[in-house]
Amino acid sequence: MTLQEDLKQRTRRLAAMLEEAEAAVIATPVNIFYLTGRIINGYVYIDGSANRLVFLRRPLGINETGYHYIRKVEQIPDLLREYGIRVPEKLLLETDELPYNDCMRICKAFGCEKPGNATKALRSLRSIKSGYEIGLLRQSAKFQSEALAEIPALFKPGMTDHELCVECERLFRMKGCLGLFRTYGTDMEGFMGSLLAGDNADTPSPYDFALGGAGMHPSLPLGDNGTALREGIAVMVDINGNFNGYIADQSRTFSVGRLPDEAYRAHEVSLSIHHSISEIAKEGTVCEDLYALALDIAEKNGLKDRFMGHRQQAKFVGHGIGLQINELPVLCAKNTSCLQQGNVIAIEPKFIIDGVGAVGIENSYAVNADGLEKLTTAEENILQLGR
Amino acid sequence: MTLQEDLKQRTRRLAAMLEEAEAAVIATPVNIFYLTGRIINGYVYIDGSANRLVFLRRPLGINETGYHYIRKVEQIPDLLREYGIRVPEKLLLETDELPYNDCMRICKAFGCEKPGNATKALRSLRSIKSGYEIGLLRQSAKFQSEALAEIPALFKPGMTDHELCVECERLFRMKGCLGLFRTYGTDMEGFMGSLLAGDNADTPSPYDFALGGAGMHPSLPLGDNGTALREGIAVMVDINGNFNGYIADQSRTFSVGRLPDEAYRAHEVSLSIHHSISEIAKEGTVCEDLYALALDIAEKNGLKDRFMGHRQQAKFVGHGIGLQINELPVLCAKNTSCLQQGNVIAIEPKFIIDGVGAVGIENSYAVNADGLEKLTTAEENILQLGR
Repeated sequence: MTLQEDLKQRTRRLAAMLEEAEAAVIATPVNIFYLTGRIINGYVYIDGSANRLVFLRRPLGINETGYHYIRKVEQIPDLLREYGIRVPEKLLLETDELPYNDCMRICKAFGCEKPGNATKALRSLRSIKSGYEIGLLRQSAKFQSEALAEIPALFKPGMTDHELCVECERLFRMKGCLGLFRTYGTDMEGFMGSLLAGDNADTPSPYDFALGGAGMHPSLPLGDNGTALREGIAVMVDINGNFNGYIADQSRTFSVGRLPDEAYRAHEVSLSIHHSISEIAKEGTVCEDLYALALDIAEKNGLKDRFMGHRQQAKFVGHGIGLQINELPVLCAKNTSCLQQGNVIAIEPKFIIDGVGAVGIENSYAVNADGLEKLTTAEENILQLGR
Repeated sequence: MTLQEDLKQRTRRLAAMLEEAEAAVIATPVNIFYLTGRIINGYVYIDGSANRLVFLRRPLGINETGYHYIRKVEQIPDLLREYGIRVPEKLLLETDELPYNDCMRICKAFGCEKPGNATKALRSLRSIKSGYEIGLLRQSAKFQSEALAEIPALFKPGMTDHELCVECERLFRMKGCLGLFRTYGTDMEGFMGSLLAGDNADTPSPYDFALGGAGMHPSLPLGDNGTALREGIAVMVDINGNFNGYIADQSRTFSVGRLPDEAYRAHEVSLSIHHSISEIAKEGTVCEDLYALALDIAEKNGLKDRFMGHRQQAKFVGHGIGLQINELPVLCAKNTSCLQQGNVIAIEPKFIIDGVGAVGIENSYAVNADGLEKLTTAEENILQLGR
């Protein structure tokens, strides 16, 4: 499958979700990239008859069939008429992500009163990855795994978590990490992921991350906070695995010297949750069942109140990944939807140990008819920094 | 002025823009931070009577007057009634930035049909910085200036632009740069700014940056693209000056070896535009006049078609900065608004020289009654890398 064939397939799949008199007008970078393979300032128009037209302001210089330069969105309906395309009666816009005023302006241009929800359709489409997309996630995961293997060598005694975090960022960037961390919705901000050392891992977060951290400044309460990397604390590294637009999600735990035994035991419980989920999860498995299974294993090991945080606990154990870090499906309570072939999910059972920090691992898996394919292959045991 | 006093002042200023029966419900991180000094997952409610209440879901653990935990936005009107506050008849929401569905859900909760525009009010408020805020921008500019001074020493012969960019990112992060680059609206994405070497600086960009660059991957067409740093090319560094939430904006040009004379001449024209603007700009100066002045100087020096790009030219010479990189005012044609005391603006006359790259500098200035205060103090001449 080439990118061009895959893009055609994406357009066809979206068009098939539309009625004949409906069209989706897509305006956010992530979905424009999904549908065209490029970033433009403009709009992708796809209708129920599978017409795909791109209307753009920038960049200049694209001379390709189906691309039309415009100054403003109001020109689109007239241009559609020129091309003999019936102006749609109903418009789907990315109402979960596109600002209110942008939506209203597009509606007005098309003579529609209010928009339908294209975000829902695109989130659903994007949750089923093609073989081509899974190949890219596999590639991102491979680069990320290679980078994680080099982290112990970056450590120098006396470092703070911030210093180690910056060295990790440099390592990832030198290996080709693009840095950008696309997120769905407005509940997350961030830079390049997080490195959480010691009790900072348990700082209650405003963001929708499993573990947040206090951060270096109140304007970005996320990640490292200047903690000294002293003997006996755990360092959880959860840094951006975006090497080609698709974001692999893989966390690993490192230690400064040796940790208390309970930390290794809790880490083993995380590995055992991965093992148990991998044994049952496949196409058709119910999402909430996987969360319940994880919670059950945590409880049986006396770690329920340490699971996914302690002072503030996240109520999920995994989530879809792709062009954004928080895609569908979500592995949480009350999600009765089933895993589908082509889902790619990150599973991240993590535990908080007082005075030590966060332990556990996060892996990314592709969902197949008969089970999971693990994409993330870095060493899973706790590695000692500086060794 | 302390932060707490400044926050009270910000609430009062916003309340003064509201009618008695109006309230603003603020939901984006940047404006929540502006009004409370923290990031929360929730809402800041401010009404025409200057009541300020914060309704939040996360982080847990805030035990402070005026903060109320909620599960969902629908609880807010009942809580207002409990506190004896009249539920507003008209609601202002951040309609330029908050997604359509979020806006509609808040409106429905309050029984309003459609929202007024709080983004406009907040962008206007935020464009006038307090002394406290200018102090923070001065501090960010100082750290950024110190980092820029160390860039020549990072260069090693044989490097690519990407390698140098990553070393610059590390340098900035080690000095305390927070990394996050908050932007207004949906026309920009980015990681940590850009390093543009040679002809890559003239790649037409989809984004609303003066000069974009092709980037390392089509999913993020911005910045370095793997160009070899060979003798005779210019390297423009425009990397994130966010050291405390407030983003200083400062670009500098470096050279690999010596550049052709026309590059130094064009760089001098950039300095002379800064000089000419600094001579006339103060409270009351009309924004479009400054753009016209810059364009005029470029034209008189035969550089009109090289100004702010060549293959694709940006139509402005400067912009406000603050918590976001693209604040008000914009120094562009047809902007007849006047500079106001407390504006902080970045001015960035840049030129493209074929086969060499981008030259010129960007400085940040605070606007006073009698002129501009330059905040960014790194060396302005072209510095040779490796020296």
